Amino acid sequence: MVTNDSVPASDVDVLIIGAGPAGLMMALWMARLGIKARIVDKRTAKVFSGQADGFQSRTLEILDSFGIGERVWKEANHMIEVCIWNPDSNGQIRRDSRIEDVLPGLSRFTQVVLHQGRMEQFFLDAIRDSYPASKNETRPSSSPIRVERCTIPTSLVLDEDAVDSDDTYPITVKLRHLSEEEATPARKLSNLSDGMFRSNLAGDDTDDILRASTNAGRREEVVKCKYVVGCDGAHSWTRKALGPEFETVGEMTDFIWGVLDIVPITDFPDIRNRSIIHSASSGSLMVIPRENKLVRLYIQLNEVSANGGRVDRSKITPEMILKAAQKILSPYKIEYHYCDWWTAYQIGQRVGPHFSKADRIFLAGDAVHTHSPKAGQGMNTSMQDAYNLGWKIGLVCKKILSRKILTTYEYERQMVAKQLIAFDHKFSRLFSGRPKRDILDETGVSMEEFANAFRMSHLFTTAIGINYQPSLLVAKPPGNDFDEGMPAVELRASTDVSRAQSTVSLALNCRPGTRFPSHQVLSQADARPWQLHHKMPSDGRFRIVIFAGDIADAEQRRRVNELGAWLGSDLLPRYPTMALSVGSDPHGATMKFPTDNQPSIIDVLLVHSAPRQEIELLKDLHSTYHPFDSKLGWEYDKVFVDGPSYHEGDGQAYKKYGVDPQHGAVVLVRPDGYVGLVTYVGSEGWKELEQWFAAVLRPL
Amino acid sequence: MVTNDSVPASDVDVLIIGAGPAGLMMALWMARLGIKARIVDKRTAKVFSGQADGFQSRTLEILDSFGIGERVWKEANHMIEVCIWNPDSNGQIRRDSRIEDVLPGLSRFTQVVLHQGRMEQFFLDAIRDSYPASKNETRPSSSPIRVERCTIPTSLVLDEDAVDSDDTYPITVKLRHLSEEEATPARKLSNLSDGMFRSNLAGDDTDDILRASTNAGRREEVVKCKYVVGCDGAHSWTRKALGPEFETVGEMTDFIWGVLDIVPITDFPDIRNRSIIHSASSGSLMVIPRENKLVRLYIQLNEVSANGGRVDRSKITPEMILKAAQKILSPYKIEYHYCDWWTAYQIGQRVGPHFSKADRIFLAGDAVHTHSPKAGQGMNTSMQDAYNLGWKIGLVCKKILSRKILTTYEYERQMVAKQLIAFDHKFSRLFSGRPKRDILDETGVSMEEFANAFRMSHLFTTAIGINYQPSLLVAKPPGNDFDEGMPAVELRASTDVSRAQSTVSLALNCRPGTRFPSHQVLSQADARPWQLHHKMPSDGRFRIVIFAGDIADAEQRRRVNELGAWLGSDLLPRYPTMALSVGSDPHGATMKFPTDNQPSIIDVLLVHSAPRQEIELLKDLHSTYHPFDSKLGWEYDKVFVDGPSYHEGDGQAYKKYGVDPQHGAVVLVRPDGYVGLVTYVGSEGWKELEQWFAAVLRPL
Repeated sequence: MVTNDSVPASDVDVLIIGAGPAGLMMALWMARLGIKARIVDKRTAKVFSGQADGFQSRTLEILDSFGIGERVWKEANHMIEVCIWNPDSNGQIRRDSRIEDVLPGLSRFTQVVLHQGRMEQFFLDAIRDSYPASKNETRPSSSPIRVERCTIPTSLVLDEDAVDSDDTYPITVKLRHLSEEEATPARKLSNLSDGMFRSNLAGDDTDDILRASTNAGRREEVVKCKYVVGCDGAHSWTRKALGPEFETVGEMTDFIWGVLDIVPITDFPDIRNRSIIHSASSGSLMVIPRENKLVRLYIQLNEVSANGGRVDRSKITPEMILKAAQKILSPYKIEYHYCDWWTAYQIGQRVGPHFSKADRIFLAGDAVHTHSPKAGQGMNTSMQDAYNLGWKIGLVCKKILSRKILTTYEYERQMVAKQLIAFDHKFSRLFSGRPKRDILDETGVSMEEFANAFRMSHLFTTAIGINYQPSLLVAKPPGNDFDEGMPAVELRASTDVSRAQSTVSLALNCRPGTRFPSHQVLSQADARPWQLHHKMPSDGRFRIVIFAGDIADAEQRRRVNELGAWLGSDLLPRYPTMALSVGSDPHGATMKFPTDNQPSIIDVLLVHSAPRQEIELLKDLHSTYHPFDSKLGWEYDKVFVDGPSYHEGDGQAYKKYGVDPQHGAVVLVRPDGYVGLVTYVGSEGWKELEQWFAAVLRPL
Repeated sequence: MVTNDSVPASDVDVLIIGAGPAGLMMALWMARLGIKARIVDKRTAKVFSGQADGFQSRTLEILDSFGIGERVWKEANHMIEVCIWNPDSNGQIRRDSRIEDVLPGLSRFTQVVLHQGRMEQFFLDAIRDSYPASKNETRPSSSPIRVERCTIPTSLVLDEDAVDSDDTYPITVKLRHLSEEEATPARKLSNLSDGMFRSNLAGDDTDDILRASTNAGRREEVVKCKYVVGCDGAHSWTRKALGPEFETVGEMTDFIWGVLDIVPITDFPDIRNRSIIHSASSGSLMVIPRENKLVRLYIQLNEVSANGGRVDRSKITPEMILKAAQKILSPYKIEYHYCDWWTAYQIGQRVGPHFSKADRIFLAGDAVHTHSPKAGQGMNTSMQDAYNLGWKIGLVCKKILSRKILTTYEYERQMVAKQLIAFDHKFSRLFSGRPKRDILDETGVSMEEFANAFRMSHLFTTAIGINYQPSLLVAKPPGNDFDEGMPAVELRASTDVSRAQSTVSLALNCRPGTRFPSHQVLSQADARPWQLHHKMPSDGRFRIVIFAGDIADAEQRRRVNELGAWLGSDLLPRYPTMALSVGSDPHGATMKFPTDNQPSIIDVLLVHSAPRQEIELLKDLHSTYHPFDSKLGWEYDKVFVDGPSYHEGDGQAYKKYGVDPQHGAVVLVRPDGYVGLVTYVGSEGWKELEQWFAAVLRPL
């Protein structure tokens, strides 16, 4: 369609503004769910060096659920050990302690480091691979999403009268397409390794870019959207377009830190460990060993200070940052031949008061929360914002999910952002503070305090401790059930809560609101060991994980099969089926052979604890657990067992999930892997499942 | 250059004929070593379905050493359990036993199944990725190798007077380039899922293709080659061109087997396990569960028989093969909607008397040995032939390796081919034979005999038990040191043996002639756990693995550092350095930052057993173990420790390698991962290292 003034116009279900990690995570969800979506970015290309680099345990689990975690895992540097250096009584630094970087047992992934540009490439590859490679593959899907670069939004209008309807496009966005030259203001071409232009010490460049662009009408277009997601960073254009009431609030400190990505030439012994060095009087430094022999140094810059005002950026150079590092590390020497990237930033924390407007326009990532980068949280939290939001928008667009679920995005993610701010505030102060000289030195930071805070932070920094509060998606009693070490924040009341009741004692380590953990189980059909997460990919489906217990016992087997019969003939038929995209089962068989049947939006997995060889899949279990397809035969990939493997040890899944094999449990897992409900295998649990889904899914 | 009659002419170091798994393995070696090579194939495209599918443990280790093992591992179906079904006293089949498919502990890889076409794709990708992606990467390399399809050799001439010189191109090959139509005789277009045209029941089609091609001179070319490798399959044109004395010899049985790749619709309970079914009187069947819900069935066809003569191929159809399967599996039902591929073959075993002509023209894979496919050995042995040969030819072309080493290819691989024939002969007879009715039934096969043979076969079928005999590359006492269960074959005397002496008691599980095993060790610099194999990629280098023992002990540390000093100032400088290709360290950091220094052809790795935190890499160990580079600083990736990890348990490497921490050991590992020498850490071992290398490498 063409509007009156010859500006081309079109519509799209979801428009994503910004193609950094948050925007690309959103785009990947859209690709996997087959949503008609576009993603635009003002820059000419993805990031090639510098920027974010830390991948936390939960992020790796999420990436793995899309099939790209192992690419990060393989290329990244793994950080295993943290070394803490402090001044001794002569003021000379010495190694104080060595501790593990991530508490063993939290996740099968530890913390790793790889530059953001590789992550962006993996997203781009995964988005491309979500669509059939050839026309012979007949799976339904919308046209492929590709990043539209050098594209900038110039206006955003929401028709608030139309927000409640499913079929309207209440948002109108004008986009301007720029030439590469226009999208690259001259000052940025000078030095690719200089990251200052993205630093929070620099202003936004969107206006510069717009001013530089010519105004020929034919290079503009109008896009009507159902949803818009602003993933456009700390200087978010989208946030500004929503008005001043969306501005983030918080505070800046006077601390300035420099960042150097170098191949170090040094005799400092812990240069390949994450090392935290507090010097007696020259400030602090953190070593982040990276891929490709690189090391990132975070260095406190005492030479420059904000002093409550603006920083003189011209004073900050890599040479000056290196000199600061040399002072802190003395008597050890450090030099470099290669510098890959450098920047500087002022420590501060800000969070947005609103994460969405009318549940039609959303903000994610740095657009709604900013903080200091040293704990490696920024890219992770940003991707996890989009991971939380993507399936919700996607399933609403597909008319599978009730629209009111969209309010849970702000409810769940604002809490995390506030926790992040609280954490960062404390961590940065500890980090930038001067070491305590002695017990009477009240303004110094005690090194015991620091080491303790560091250890206690793992649950939060890995994001494994994230615990979403009661809502329609999380059935649990209200009240604070955060773990020790999780930052305390004020909780908002959720507007709607589930009428379903969880019985948390049935599965002690599958707590509603937290991510469902992964442990090793064996396939009943072929004895192959699997991480249970590998059978729970991010394909948009809800999952009912049935811990069936000891089904060699006839009574328990009867209960489990009754549940199967009810699920297959009653619950599942109420709700839609959904075609799965290519690549949606990255750790399973690709679906080479087409069938006429689409899977239910609710996937049923069963994990029993009877001896594997005593159970015959087809004979002993209800067909809900191994559905029949007239072209493909029986399904063999939904029933698992907790027991010893031939080659990979014993997963001890029941013990680790906290489930008693005598009773079993039913755990409802959301499409993003968080536990929504824990209930009984027996018929007393059916009503809970029924109520949970009734408030969330739209019936057929 | 252009010859007189206008046929274009050129030269190449290595010409590979045939782009199946053996040819592609050879091409990958050439790509990684930067050799000027070409690979031609008569077919229009790689294989898309059917053909070989089994990947054995050792093959996966090899693929992993090139960085492509994990692609197979992820996509493949893993076969964990074998079910053996036999007739009961009523003649009805029942499950007799379930056993593990591969003995635990042999390798970190078990047996997996994926169709040959995916493997070929992974090779093609890895070959492409061995060359710099952009011109900015300045690493030296020859022009990229790509498969030249629809290309057929028409003559092969060896100038025997020129074979001993390094710089001559003694082989002249004429190649003809065909159009796609010419390379695809009409009968093969009929049914892509019909594999009969590649079966050993069909004749060769090279002559058909040649006859169909026109004879325009401008589509021919002359290639002068230093080396030619014929990887052109059972009907090898190369072998025939070498003359009748190269013809393989052996025998055919009358047993005919059919193969069906289907998505089964069945109530047979073990369809997702490797199952071996002997029926009372309808013959035998083997189930190979595969990727993509496919199952391969190997089915004995009693309806057709060679009876010493030719088989009537027209009688063999998928319907007829399915009927045979249905009879064997009765009373279970089996049907299908999808058939991906099918074929039939006659069981027989043949091996070539010569694997090379003048060590200039070589044969590998099916071109020199054929046998029945059921044990999944064909593709594996073929790739391993090429794996054994590739680095030898490559390093000879680079004038690093002495040319006389090339004789070890036939010496080592003909032994394996003979073992394969002996194994297959026994295994096929057991498999095709009729089950014994009772103890007096002398022509039947006892099921105990079968199950025992099956269990004992793992060392051979995994290829982990392969044990190369004494030569210049394997310093060990002569005599049969094969493990129990390895097929006994007559050993040839090696012409040249190493003057170096191994002291095998120093590293009991690193036996000369066998592959160096992989166990978990930790990086000294950063505590990261690694499989030691991941630090020994297939990059063409020899490795000295120093089990340094307890270097917290000053005396032992002195010995280890004296060895380091001798290696660094005496042994290593005698031999060339070699630039490494892109991708040559698939499990390590990619080398993003260029340096002027090339690594030695001998890579030194150290594994000590002192407590990790008691050792300082830079301070306690000689710089040979952490070489300094003026642009990149110290090397942190060559020193490892046996000890407990934070997250991945305790590798117990010394125990598993059979090394006493009191003494340590030095293990010399060939570029293909086989142990060449085991000797002392102390100076009594230096002479052995010196002698071993002196006979193998060309000094500077």
